[in-house]
Amino acid sequence: MGKQPNIYMDYASTAPTVPQVVEAMAPYWEHTFGNSDSQHRFGRDAANALEKARSTIADILSCHPVELVFTGSGTESDNLALRGTALAARQNGTGNHIVTTTIEHRAVEATVEQLGDFFQFDITRVPVNEFGQVSPEDIARAIRPDTILVSVMAANNEVGTVQPIFRIGQVCRQHGVLFHTDAVQAAGKLPLEVADCNIDLLAISAHKIYGPKGVGLLYIRRRTPFVPPITGGHQERGRYPGTVNVAGAVGLATAYEIAETIRVDECRRLRALRDQLIQNVLSTIPDSRLTGHPSQRLCNIASFAFRGIEGEDLVVRLDQTGVSASTGAACSSGEPEASAVLDAMGIPQEWGTGSLRLSLGRFTTEDDIARVVGLLPDIVAQLRSHS
Amino acid sequence: MGKQPNIYMDYASTAPTVPQVVEAMAPYWEHTFGNSDSQHRFGRDAANALEKARSTIADILSCHPVELVFTGSGTESDNLALRGTALAARQNGTGNHIVTTTIEHRAVEATVEQLGDFFQFDITRVPVNEFGQVSPEDIARAIRPDTILVSVMAANNEVGTVQPIFRIGQVCRQHGVLFHTDAVQAAGKLPLEVADCNIDLLAISAHKIYGPKGVGLLYIRRRTPFVPPITGGHQERGRYPGTVNVAGAVGLATAYEIAETIRVDECRRLRALRDQLIQNVLSTIPDSRLTGHPSQRLCNIASFAFRGIEGEDLVVRLDQTGVSASTGAACSSGEPEASAVLDAMGIPQEWGTGSLRLSLGRFTTEDDIARVVGLLPDIVAQLRSHS
Repeated sequence: MGKQPNIYMDYASTAPTVPQVVEAMAPYWEHTFGNSDSQHRFGRDAANALEKARSTIADILSCHPVELVFTGSGTESDNLALRGTALAARQNGTGNHIVTTTIEHRAVEATVEQLGDFFQFDITRVPVNEFGQVSPEDIARAIRPDTILVSVMAANNEVGTVQPIFRIGQVCRQHGVLFHTDAVQAAGKLPLEVADCNIDLLAISAHKIYGPKGVGLLYIRRRTPFVPPITGGHQERGRYPGTVNVAGAVGLATAYEIAETIRVDECRRLRALRDQLIQNVLSTIPDSRLTGHPSQRLCNIASFAFRGIEGEDLVVRLDQTGVSASTGAACSSGEPEASAVLDAMGIPQEWGTGSLRLSLGRFTTEDDIARVVGLLPDIVAQLRSHS
Repeated sequence: MGKQPNIYMDYASTAPTVPQVVEAMAPYWEHTFGNSDSQHRFGRDAANALEKARSTIADILSCHPVELVFTGSGTESDNLALRGTALAARQNGTGNHIVTTTIEHRAVEATVEQLGDFFQFDITRVPVNEFGQVSPEDIARAIRPDTILVSVMAANNEVGTVQPIFRIGQVCRQHGVLFHTDAVQAAGKLPLEVADCNIDLLAISAHKIYGPKGVGLLYIRRRTPFVPPITGGHQERGRYPGTVNVAGAVGLATAYEIAETIRVDECRRLRALRDQLIQNVLSTIPDSRLTGHPSQRLCNIASFAFRGIEGEDLVVRLDQTGVSASTGAACSSGEPEASAVLDAMGIPQEWGTGSLRLSLGRFTTEDDIARVVGLLPDIVAQLRSHS
């Protein structure tokens, strides 16, 4: 095994920054290094690059550039969305209730927890079905006169299930409630036209779409009441102050532009690889099951549960054979917790601990799939024989 | 003038990312691109780089690596410091009062404003003297039994005045109050040994020390009560969640290491250039004055007030002649406001509007100084004759 190249199957956790993006960022380190806020030529050059990046993304999302805020991460974008609208609602006395789901990423879940426990907002977590999907009708039923915001992720990071955000957006609009979606996993895989989907706030992360780490984006629809949860200068119209990361903004825009250009073809390719992987795993490994929705799932995520083993052991054994994968929510995978998402989907404990996410990406090949399919049955069998 | 190279004299606003830093970050785009949180070889390689960067900075600050948190900017570090300790105090019922000064950067001032107006904390802003310096005795007098935090910048961004943070740290320790300092301008110019100075929280920005934009650092002394104002996964021990910007952390560490290595010599060089600039300006331009402290000032900041002109006009004229400078607080220089810092120092309005900051840096030469000294008297005279 040692001679074979490593197989990276954790693209949902992070992706490499591709050469075109590295190249696009290059002028903004030493040459066009000005503070985009400065009133001189160095500042203007930086500001021009920043606004060009903003426009590129506005074209992709079909929104106005002023509606876009560059942040430090997808997590931060989610935080700004939830906290900014919650603080504004408190200031304006417009309500105290937030609706979300039981399978949100920690960036949303931990934030609504604090908004609930610390800031006394009322939180309703709408459950999901066995496929990890929330129903727009359930969202509608959870909305109350004092509801200020609905937050539902566009696609789940762990099982890849795509949520009916178009219909949830309609429900929110009908009820006059703001709609936030964490689109960190969906960006580059699904079309995200914010106006069509009635989305008021949308969070994206650069490094999931082959851009740099440390750069996020938040779409905030114009006239959305917003009190900045991070304060300082007037950068990003005061919504995310601090000297703007111009290179990062250019990197995000470049990465997103590439991802959108190749999206349809690349998703078709990945979907075929993903389905090959799923079919092989399910047919060769006893007591295995697919987690998440059978068809309404991201093109790049194959997620499984294997009865009676520990996902963490599985990831360690795969790593020893040169395959990088993850179990549970990748962003908190340092914690030896059972998957909260699978639990929320009603998957029994003896299956839920044996979760595995194999997420494919731009550099995944058929050979990679074949090798993983060849390795996995033995590894699962060995783990079962040891336990 | 058009043929001459541009002269950048706005290093206090931002500095170029130097080639050694760009080079140090390079492996972390495409090659060692893993999520430092992942449990496989790509993750471990990223985590190793991250922890090496953290250790490098811990050595500089004489602290423990776990006390360091990588953030998205200096502004964000200040926000985390103030909000994190304020929320913890609220949770623990330990007090409701924050002491700061009248000349803080917007990252601190706007945050204490919101903590005061929105979250009902009590804020005391201790005034400064004509040199922009706060007295430790005044800080001591402002501390009350319910004071939780004192926030005083290490050096002012606009006039370069260095604050007596060693003695303020002693005062805070004597009173059992946390001490935060915004060291964004001081880093790389002053030694910052957090333990010696009794500093509990210290904020730094990478791009001011020739590192990348979009990366900040917050030192949080162990056992400092802290409720994270941004929530999500457990990265950075939950104090700043979100996938860590590994390249950025490596960039910050590399930049800071270089800055510390050359600090003493480079500051000596800059101080000589700065004093040459100050002496020439004051002797050749009538109705000009130095702002800030005559001797206790950052080695790289020369700041002036010229009676009866507008600083913004001055910056525009300088820009037309190829000199990049700033007026007022550089980070909010898009706003046509009179300098709040000069106002707080008691400088009369007719002087305060005519503020100019010339901040020198690693690529500033004697020729640059000579050219600016040659240009400035005529420009000031022209502006005066027009008004």
